[in-house]
Amino acid sequence: MDKIRIGIVGYGNIGRGVEKAIARNEDMELTAVFTRRDPSGVKIATEGVEVKHIDDMLSMKDKIDVMMLCGGSATDLPVMGPQIVQNFNTIDSFDTHARIPEYFANVDKAAKSGGHVGIISVGWDPGMFSLNRLYAESILVQGSTYTFWGKGVSQGHSDAIRRVEGVKNAIQYTVPVEDAVERVRSGSEPQLTTRDKHLRECYVVPEEGADLKKIEEAIKTMPNYFDDYDTTVTFITEEELKENHSKMPHGGFVIRSGETGTDGSKHIIEYSLKLDSNPEFTASVLVCYARAAYRLAKAGETGAKTVFDIAPALLSMKTPEQLRAELL
Amino acid sequence: MDKIRIGIVGYGNIGRGVEKAIARNEDMELTAVFTRRDPSGVKIATEGVEVKHIDDMLSMKDKIDVMMLCGGSATDLPVMGPQIVQNFNTIDSFDTHARIPEYFANVDKAAKSGGHVGIISVGWDPGMFSLNRLYAESILVQGSTYTFWGKGVSQGHSDAIRRVEGVKNAIQYTVPVEDAVERVRSGSEPQLTTRDKHLRECYVVPEEGADLKKIEEAIKTMPNYFDDYDTTVTFITEEELKENHSKMPHGGFVIRSGETGTDGSKHIIEYSLKLDSNPEFTASVLVCYARAAYRLAKAGETGAKTVFDIAPALLSMKTPEQLRAELL
Repeated sequence: MDKIRIGIVGYGNIGRGVEKAIARNEDMELTAVFTRRDPSGVKIATEGVEVKHIDDMLSMKDKIDVMMLCGGSATDLPVMGPQIVQNFNTIDSFDTHARIPEYFANVDKAAKSGGHVGIISVGWDPGMFSLNRLYAESILVQGSTYTFWGKGVSQGHSDAIRRVEGVKNAIQYTVPVEDAVERVRSGSEPQLTTRDKHLRECYVVPEEGADLKKIEEAIKTMPNYFDDYDTTVTFITEEELKENHSKMPHGGFVIRSGETGTDGSKHIIEYSLKLDSNPEFTASVLVCYARAAYRLAKAGETGAKTVFDIAPALLSMKTPEQLRAELL
Repeated sequence: MDKIRIGIVGYGNIGRGVEKAIARNEDMELTAVFTRRDPSGVKIATEGVEVKHIDDMLSMKDKIDVMMLCGGSATDLPVMGPQIVQNFNTIDSFDTHARIPEYFANVDKAAKSGGHVGIISVGWDPGMFSLNRLYAESILVQGSTYTFWGKGVSQGHSDAIRRVEGVKNAIQYTVPVEDAVERVRSGSEPQLTTRDKHLRECYVVPEEGADLKKIEEAIKTMPNYFDDYDTTVTFITEEELKENHSKMPHGGFVIRSGETGTDGSKHIIEYSLKLDSNPEFTASVLVCYARAAYRLAKAGETGAKTVFDIAPALLSMKTPEQLRAELL
């Protein structure tokens, strides 16, 4: 069997996760890693695989079936996504919710002009959580959907704390409020405010001699990031941060409750994730969607797609016959 | 907007559930109900909709977009499925797992010869649970998947008890063993026997003067149905049965745990359902797949499909643009 040849663009947490996920999928192989840095300075885990400069990508046009775009959503993907999909099938985890329509349009146009498939916004949210919102709402037409995130590290919020004066290092956990989750699970369809749904726990390493009261105040009143939440600030040492907070767990819940029929029958649909490593799990989702991109491109499809457009069978290594016999 | 015109074949619990679900989907309308009984004796809930004999189906060929086949899997669907799909797009909830490959082949052949789409084995298991097994296994390639059912009524097991001598009426609940569910949720990937996973609770109305000890013994040792399980038998009156056991709740869990990367990172994916009414929920799933069948047929597709073959976006009333903006 010919393996699906994968390229990785960007070798950060997600890129490294994709590399490890490829090793767990026997129908795939890693062909090259592309970086904006000096390739000679980038050491990857897979032996015998080349690291190339991102500008040399086109020389690999016939050697790579799917490019995994592992850059950030803020500035990398809006430029790289439409550019690369002109020459390669692509998968990315674009997650700036508000800009998805615009990004989809740009990738779609470029993908069609180049004759490729680009599956955007793949991962768990957007991604598996989105799928579960869609399935649940299509089944229970009248009802309410709730998404809870955590307990897990929010990179954006951790970064925001690090910008506060007197802060040396910090990490922020988003924590779902248990009582709110239970109320949702009961099927009562409560109205919940931002504050009702999540807590924010901050672990902060202060600079020597910093005014701790002032730091705590600055964090708790930070608009958009913290002022709408109940926030706790705990000061710790750099060693404690390293020891107890260097993993990247995450997870969450999508819960829909709704009614059917005419006798008030209630139903609860819940999807939940508990992840030891957010980047490794995200990468594992990306990799199974690479299989779908490969198959769609082989079938002559082009353009931008999302998880909503992908028939589930395309994700699996198993044949349709196996799937029906073993999993249906 | 032209509504999707639905026909219901078979007016039992599922058929009635489909009728109620159609009323909750504004892009659909019920066109006719077909029955094997004398149509004049079948009173349906929707006003102004005809009840017709199943033999008069062909007269409605141009008036119905999708036929919902609400017959049983044992004897009805194996005959009706391939027959009706020659003239109509169909949805069914065929759930005899072992015979799915054969049924799929028969529906596929007939659907292709007639130029229609037949989506088989739709519901929650097979159906939403199957989808979750597939998604979870595609993401976490190395791991273990567990399906738990209940607490809910098993029709097949209730029927089996009713055939025991001295039993007037009975109902059987399948109950997941909480300790087993917790062990699975912990990510330990335990080996579980049939007995470890589920209990069977039987509520039995005995005939007057029946030998209760003998009934209990006969149930608990019944091969295939009960002998592999821890089973409880509780004798109750016909009134208690009616009062406390006339609803049809069900539900369950699909849990996959698996590892990614090289540092032993573990992940738990869980999908769960808690349903007040098994037939109404099943019917609600059938109805959103009717939308997909309608759209696929319009796009010129033919043949048998399962939930694995249906892109999620096809299930929703929302446009692709709305889905990306609101749910992704």
